[in-house]
Amino acid sequence: MTSIPPAPAGCFDGPVHLFTVRAYFEDTDLSGVVYHANYVRWFERARSDLVRLLGMDQRAANEAGEGAWAVSEMTIHYRAPARLDDAVLIETRAEEVGAATCRMHQRALLLVDGQPGPLLAEARLRIGFVAPDGRPRRQPADWRAAFSSLLPAAKDTP
Amino acid sequence: MTSIPPAPAGCFDGPVHLFTVRAYFEDTDLSGVVYHANYVRWFERARSDLVRLLGMDQRAANEAGEGAWAVSEMTIHYRAPARLDDAVLIETRAEEVGAATCRMHQRALLLVDGQPGPLLAEARLRIGFVAPDGRPRRQPADWRAAFSSLLPAAKDTP
Amino acid sequence: MTSIPPAPAGCFDGPVHLFTVRAYFEDTDLSGVVYHANYVRWFERARSDLVRLLGMDQRAANEAGEGAWAVSEMTIHYRAPARLDDAVLIETRAEEVGAATCRMHQRALLLVDGQPGPLLAEARLRIGFVAPDGRPRRQPADWRAAFSSLLPAAKDTP
Amino acid sequence: MTSIPPAPAGCFDGPVHLFTVRAYFEDTDLSGVVYHANYVRWFERARSDLVRLLGMDQRAANEAGEGAWAVSEMTIHYRAPARLDDAVLIETRAEEVGAATCRMHQRALLLVDGQPGPLLAEARLRIGFVAPDGRPRRQPADWRAAFSSLLPAAKDTP
Repeated sequence: MTSIPPAPAGCFDGPVHLFTVRAYFEDTDLSGVVYHANYVRWFERARSDLVRLLGMDQRAANEAGEGAWAVSEMTIHYRAPARLDDAVLIETRAEEVGAATCRMHQRALLLVDGQPGPLLAEARLRIGFVAPDGRPRRQPADWRAAFSSLLPAAKDTP
Repeated sequence: MTSIPPAPAGCFDGPVHLFTVRAYFEDTDLSGVVYHANYVRWFERARSDLVRLLGMDQRAANEAGEGAWAVSEMTIHYRAPARLDDAVLIETRAEEVGAATCRMHQRALLLVDGQPGPLLAEARLRIGFVAPDGRPRRQPADWRAAFSSLLPAAKDTP
Repeated sequence: MTSIPPAPAGCFDGPVHLFTVRAYFEDTDLSGVVYHANYVRWFERARSDLVRLLGMDQRAANEAGEGAWAVSEMTIHYRAPARLDDAVLIETRAEEVGAATCRMHQRALLLVDGQPGPLLAEARLRIGFVAPDGRPRRQPADWRAAFSSLLPAAKDTP
Repeated sequence: MTSIPPAPAGCFDGPVHLFTVRAYFEDTDLSGVVYHANYVRWFERARSDLVRLLGMDQRAANEAGEGAWAVSEMTIHYRAPARLDDAVLIETRAEEVGAATCRMHQRALLLVDGQPGPLLAEARLRIGFVAPDGRPRRQPADWRAAFSSLLPAAKDTP
């Protein structure tokens, strides 16, 4: 009886979302390390996983014409390079939740023997919910509640 | 005590390598489905995982100037589209192993409730080991042995 | 008075569409050459440019829910590697045009002093027009006529 | 006699580097607009073109083991979305040049009838020259001089 490896999925450690990626050939560039724009894609994977785990169905929202999350600003610091075959942990935290926006903090850490090691890159970003015409739109109320449950204060009020 | 999700990794079911991916925003295009070139990247991830599990250190081989695997030909049939958040199983089989080449067969199957469902895409490809100057080169003997262990006949001779 | 460089655009040499790309960091991988999946993206750029020049508005067709072109099969042979800063010519030819499908042939040639040089990669592919639900759909009649004007026979019947 | 379209290349308007890109299927995501990480790749293309035009041979520097430019920090603001087939102008300015680093400012503007229109996205970033082992390294003296020629003051001291 075959055991299929689990589909990629992260989990929550309290309000912190944990997600892992690995560096493949597609991620590297000729300097031998992971291309800087690919961290931006890794961070998106982690956020998409986070909202999926929170029960927000982005595909349905898009197909229903309700809207989608879009990044409106992002600051990334690159601290150390990742290389082929490296396993990387992405931590994601919500820092602020509004009617149509969220601020998030994401960190990419090299996994060494399965444990978080050196910081590779770190991002702060603001995402906004936008209608199909590109205009800001209030996020669904239950989505806001779900995001808010990740705010630091929530740690203290279980 | 936190449990970090495992780093992405596939496994072998006999000679068949199994690997999972998930479709994120980065993978889709404006038609709402996964962009065709991204299956090519998914298949590469699976092959890179396969060779990693077989003990071939591609990073070291590259850094030592020994060479790298390169795709020399590839035929892909697209059968059905994948969409955002879909989990996808990639099966990889070795079909022929030579001194400097391998032929492989890869299939991408939609995972439905964790079980393989409809076929999304399928590829046959030939990879060749090439020196840094781009010329074909014999693969290391132990790599060839490792690949050969995946050939269909190997199923019968455990 | 500033002269803005022209927006990327190809042109036709009779029925052959010509388009150029250049290899940037994003295109390379750690082996120092262009990553194989990126030729697939380069070929798509050339086809998207071709249909744009033929007057097919894919964006409008998608937004109107009419459908989109999707690759249904593709065979690529990789002949020689491209490297950072290389300029590459993509030639695209229509080989067969049907109610809902086209067969195309694409070649990527290194540009040496602005002239076509060594063949880098070559693809044959079949694209199909599909409705938003993924089912095949007849392409608009004027699109079919436009594609047909590129068939080899058309060379003889101006 | 065929006229091959020119290879992608930008130009300088005084100290400002101008470069154009176009949005293809590969650039979009299911929300119908250009995926945010792809602006990061567009900005890289413009910078790689800029350094190429300044006479810095990044490929040779990499192959000789001298090092490569790496992004160390980047802030991007997304102002308006780009869509399929849009032509986009990327303006790049040097803001500060050091022994091993540069600060640059990049803007992506929609091209409307060949003229710069609405601002789509804007980035400030710091790049550092790094040795193959990842450590900061002084950039070659002539590279520094070339970058410095783009500093605002240089406009006044021809």
